[in-house]
Formats: sequence, structure tokens, C-alpha cells
Amino acid sequence: MKTENKLENRIHTVQEACEALMALEVNPGTERIPVEEACKRILAEDVTAQIAVPSFEKSAFDGYAVRREDIEEASPENRITLKVLETIAAGSVGRYSVTPGTASRIMTGAAIPDGADAVVKYEETEFSETEVTFSQPAKAPNIVAIGEDVKKGTCLSKQGKVISAADIAMMAGQGMEQVTVYKKPEIAVISTGSELLTPGQELVKGKIYNTNPYLLSGYMVANGMKPQKYGIVKDDIDALKSCVEEALAQSDMVITTGGVSVGDFDYIPRVMEQIGARILFHRLAFKPGGAMLAAVKDGKVILGLSGNPGAAVVGMLRVGWPYMKKLCGMSEFCFAEAEAFLKDPYMRKSPGTRILRGKAQIIEGKLFFQLIDNQRNGAVSSMADCNLLAEIPAGSSELQAGTKVKVYFI
Amino acid sequence: MKTENKLENRIHTVQEACEALMALEVNPGTERIPVEEACKRILAEDVTAQIAVPSFEKSAFDGYAVRREDIEEASPENRITLKVLETIAAGSVGRYSVTPGTASRIMTGAAIPDGADAVVKYEETEFSETEVTFSQPAKAPNIVAIGEDVKKGTCLSKQGKVISAADIAMMAGQGMEQVTVYKKPEIAVISTGSELLTPGQELVKGKIYNTNPYLLSGYMVANGMKPQKYGIVKDDIDALKSCVEEALAQSDMVITTGGVSVGDFDYIPRVMEQIGARILFHRLAFKPGGAMLAAVKDGKVILGLSGNPGAAVVGMLRVGWPYMKKLCGMSEFCFAEAEAFLKDPYMRKSPGTRILRGKAQIIEGKLFFQLIDNQRNGAVSSMADCNLLAEIPAGSSELQAGTKVKVYFI
Repeated sequence: MKTENKLENRIHTVQEACEALMALEVNPGTERIPVEEACKRILAEDVTAQIAVPSFEKSAFDGYAVRREDIEEASPENRITLKVLETIAAGSVGRYSVTPGTASRIMTGAAIPDGADAVVKYEETEFSETEVTFSQPAKAPNIVAIGEDVKKGTCLSKQGKVISAADIAMMAGQGMEQVTVYKKPEIAVISTGSELLTPGQELVKGKIYNTNPYLLSGYMVANGMKPQKYGIVKDDIDALKSCVEEALAQSDMVITTGGVSVGDFDYIPRVMEQIGARILFHRLAFKPGGAMLAAVKDGKVILGLSGNPGAAVVGMLRVGWPYMKKLCGMSEFCFAEAEAFLKDPYMRKSPGTRILRGKAQIIEGKLFFQLIDNQRNGAVSSMADCNLLAEIPAGSSELQAGTKVKVYFI
Repeated sequence: MKTENKLENRIHTVQEACEALMALEVNPGTERIPVEEACKRILAEDVTAQIAVPSFEKSAFDGYAVRREDIEEASPENRITLKVLETIAAGSVGRYSVTPGTASRIMTGAAIPDGADAVVKYEETEFSETEVTFSQPAKAPNIVAIGEDVKKGTCLSKQGKVISAADIAMMAGQGMEQVTVYKKPEIAVISTGSELLTPGQELVKGKIYNTNPYLLSGYMVANGMKPQKYGIVKDDIDALKSCVEEALAQSDMVITTGGVSVGDFDYIPRVMEQIGARILFHRLAFKPGGAMLAAVKDGKVILGLSGNPGAAVVGMLRVGWPYMKKLCGMSEFCFAEAEAFLKDPYMRKSPGTRILRGKAQIIEGKLFFQLIDNQRNGAVSSMADCNLLAEIPAGSSELQAGTKVKVYFI
């Protein structure tokens, strides 16, 4: 009954597996949506400034628009008084040009009137309704130049970028109402295992509540993917096969949990064979989560993860994540890799590559990796508050506190 | 016409302003929602484990459940063969007790049968349908203990926590279908200024497209708040007053941009007076964004921010944010403060507190603050890719690269 692994198993390491997935073509669809709904979506076009911001010279302060030369000689001993032409409010345009001997009262953001080349702040003048007096020259132009914030033709945001609040504001500043973004990939999540119950069902001995789809979907939703829950499939090869086929037809990618190992009821590899999916890899050399599989059918990936929540999520995040972000249309696929210092000693040897779950801490400007207590494969609680994975290379011995390790932000 | 500042101005620093806001009572409402929709919401109850996970002893591997003493003497020279009673699949419970001389084939996750106290992996045995042979003792129990992931009575997640994917999975693991979370606070956003246009309107000289509500709302949405856009109010005191009153009645908090300085059309302070709001502070000693105001009416805060996008967002994030997170029900109000090293020199003196916009970079385990080029108040582009604010204390002179500065993650 034991399923033979028929693979040549050329792909063995995390790196090779990531690369094999990343080598696959993706073709995410696009959609036009209102700019204000675009936060965290992935930009599917370059956004280039069609207008300069500001598109006219404007005042940086409330004050008086003057000709600098008129007050160049001003001093406490030589006070210079100019006639006030008008008040220019923000949003309106002055009626008069500033000519020798005159000034216009101007509000922050208002267009500089013709003739003026500086704005003197209120505080630096004395004024009445009709006149303004200076006892010093203009200190600075106090004029916001055309294009000071955004020059016409500038690329504001690049295709493939995660749209931020500032990106949206820049698009609004261009008068844009809609933007083209990539559609969120629909990712089917199938749980396999006769031991699984759905919350709401009565708990009986031998059964456990299913947690994997909640865990995996949570990460997907937070990263702009659209998980589609296909529920629980019992350990029955035909039921599993038809569920996978249905999910493949309806989604951009399929993720299964459980059934990927070598047990009597680990049907995922056999289902891949039966549906004619090409296996990219099966079993990788890392823990936890290395008991995983990836296959391709009709250009769509099936990622078979461990049934253990801790292992499943590490497998998805460490191996599947770059590809899944590519599927979202992101141009920077890999999640942020950095180096951190171990906060505490890690007193186990790591014959194979080992991925640890932990928390980022910044202490006096240094990034520390604080190991989370419970590193067991099955432990959902090991992911609570986890925001950093550390990768310990194969062949490492015990590690002292302060050792520098490669980490991934999740 | 100049608005006199009638305040005694006791509150002057960022710290004092944050504390004055944080001293206000908040009373966020709660709602019951499906667990699977709770990601990023704020927990309004302690979640305590009602059941241990797992709730029964289960096998950590596919293998044979045995009595350890039966194979204690096993060696290559002294192979011990046991009779196989049955196969126990995950999710089912064995029919037989393991008695001396017997074993049960067992799958990962299946309940350990009575009598057995260890599981030996397939790989460490030789087996047929009816018998299994051992040439070594059991190396480890390979039994997942009751409560190994979650002990009954453990507090899984505390009130006030941002619910993560793992929190949701832990709740699902408890069989929970619904959870009590805080309602998202509704925050009215009012833009003031006769110069403002809504995207879609034709651009004319003296006018600019309104960006502030897009920028501020983006941060709010990303942090679990519900911005309510009240559009643009021209510089008209009555229109502004009635808009603020309507927004106060309909929202949990009101944010305005523009009109908060000392210009002829800076009506916000006067509106506060007219509606009888108590002013907490007006004008703070930091740049950019210090030209801001907070007032309270009927227990609700009105935060009047600068009309300059860069200044508005710094004011909201540095001063308003802790209070706004409290309004969300979060128990950890303050945004993450840390220390970082300046990536480049900062060659300006800072007579007053100065807040710089930048990016976090981690290089060889150290957190660096990389200044964003455009620090102008009006510059929306200064917030693109900004994920870190650095706070330079008043009285600082030029700063060399590598100087340690206080930073806030945003």
C-alpha cells in the first residue's frame, strides 16, 4: 500500500523549490477600480504624472506678495510701505499684477500674482487694510515652485507595486478617479483528513477542529489574495480527486493540507498522478514543513502542504510565498529577507535546514530574533505573534545568543 | 481679522499632546462576528481555551502503536515480532487495546489506543499485513500529549489584541464560530479650502486636487478604522460649522485638514469656539504638522490638521495615532517606538522638535533610517514608501551618519 516516490527528486532544497515555482509563468488578470479602493492592491500600470503638482506657483505662507526689489533696502531705520492691491484667497487668482510700490495680501496655497517674486509672512510686517510696511528685505521667496512636489512626466508609482495611502493620494493629486490593478488571485484551500471537524460540529474522541484553512487564509487575506475555502475532504481518494479537479477549474491555485506524506491515507501524490499533474517537487530538505509537494496542471500550481498547522504555514510562507506574490502581480516577489541576532541561545543541532518561528525585537537599533517557545509542527500557537522566520543552515551546531541568522519578515 | 489665540497654551510638546488625548475616556462598541472574518479586528474579550488541543493522546507519526516494554530488548540479533491488531486511521478510534505481544498500525494524528505507550515509525520496522518486526527499542514515545498545543484554561488571546491569522486558527481549534470584537471607529474626514477640487473636476489655475482625505483614510483603513469622507468645505465659517456639527453627530471622531493656522480664512479655531468644543491644544512645538489643534465636544475629539499633506499625516500619525488606536479598542495604543541609526548625515540644525519621514532598512542586523528626499510639508510624495518616522529632539545640531535616533514604525 505504501506510495512509492517515483520522482527523481532533483529538487531538494528550499531555494531550488522556490526557483522552480518562480520559473512558472503567471498571467494575472487586471481590473479598473476607484482610486480610493486601491489601498494594498497591486498596481498593473505605471502611473505617470500628467500634471505638475502644484501646477502654478503658490504661496507657502499667509503674507504679502511683493516684488523683492521694492523692499531690498528696507531696515528698521528705512521702513518701506507698499499699497495693498487686494486679498488673494487660496483657490482664487489675483485680479491685479503687483507693480512697483504695491503688494497683495495672499493666503497659503494661493496663486502668486503676476509681478510678484516673493511672499513676506504676516509676522514680518506691519499692516493695515490698505497698506503694509516692511523693516527688512524678503528673507526667502516663500513660493512653492511649479512641480515642486511632482514634476510633469515623473513616474509616480511603478507597475507591480503594492499601492500605499501615499500612492492613492498622489493619484488623487493627479485628478485620477480610477486605476488599473491586478485581480486578486483566487486560491482554493482544501483540508484533507477524516479526523477533522468544522467548528460548530460536536467534538468526539479522535477528532480535532480544523485550523489550517483559517491560518493559511489569514495570511492570504492580509497579503491581497482571495482564499476560497473548499472545506474538509475525508481520506478518500475519489472524493479528494474530484475536489481538487473542481478547485483547479475554479481557482488560480490550489492549496491542500494533509495527506502529503507517506502514510496509508496520504493520497495527495496519487491524486496528482491521476489527474495528470506534473510534479515539481515532493519532500524538501527543511523542517518543519518539508513534507510538501508542488505540482502543475494546466499552468496552475497545486501546493500540497503538511497537515500540521505549524509545518503547513512555514511551508507556504517559506516556499510558496514568492510564487504566490508573483501570482498577485507583485514585482518584488520575495518577502523581506534580512539578518538578525539571536536573542537567546538555540541549543539544538540542525543536521538539516531548520526554520524557526519567532518575533522581531529592536533593541538599541539592532534587530533581534526572539524564538517563540512552542516550535512543534502541530502547534498553531507557535504562529501567534510570529512575525519573523529564521533559517538555520543544514549542519549547524548549537548557536549562541547574538549569532547572526538569516530571517524573513512575514 | 486675525484670530487671537486665546489659549493659555499649557500643552506645547508632542508628548503632552499625546497624553492629553490619551487621558480622554473612550467607549468603543462591540459586535459579534464570524471568527473567519476577524483578521486584523480588535478582540473585545479574553479568549480562554475551553478544550485542550489535542483533546486526546495522538500519534505524531505513521507507525505502530506498541507497549514500550514489549520491544525493550529488541536488537538486530534479537528481533521481536508483534501481531498487528488493526489499522487506526486519523479521526477514528481503535477497537482493541494493545496487549502484550500486539501492536496496532496507526496513522499520524490518530488517537493512541488503550495499552500503547509509544509509536514506532514505519521506517524503523519491517511489516506485513499481520505482523510487525522490531530490531531496536522505541526511540521516543512519538505521542502528542493532551494539551500539548493548548492547555485547557489557557488564555489564548487577550482583549485589546489585534487578531492575527494564528489567533483565528486557535479560535477555530476551540470550535469557536463567533467572536466579540470592537466596532471599527467611524472617523469623519473633512477637507477645508476653497482651492480644493475633487478628482474628476476640471483643473483651473489656483486650484489643486484634494489629496488629504485619500492619504489619511489610507492609513486609517490599513489600521482598522472606518473613515467617512465628508468632502470639501469652502472657506466659509457657517458651512464649516454645520459640516463639523453633522460629522460630530454621525461619527466617533472628526478630522479636519486645513484652516487651522492663523490666516484670514483659518476658521477651524473659531468653529470650535462657536460649537462650544473645549480646546485641548492648539499649535505644538514640532515640524512638520505642529500647526494643529485638538478639541473635545460631547466626549468626541475633533483633530484639526494642517492642510499640507505631509504635515497633516505626520500630525495625525505622531500625535493623534495613539488615541485613535485606543478608540479602536487596542490595548497597546502607541505605535512601535524603537531606535535606529541614521543612514546618511542630516546636515540641518533642529531648533525645535523635527520629525523626518523615511524608510526602514536592515543592514547586517542593524536598523537604519533612510531619509526620504522630499521632506516638504506639502509633499504627498514624501509619504510614498515612508514606513518610519524619526524624531529629532529640539536643539539638535547637524547629525552624522550612524547617529542613533528615536523612530516610530508607521
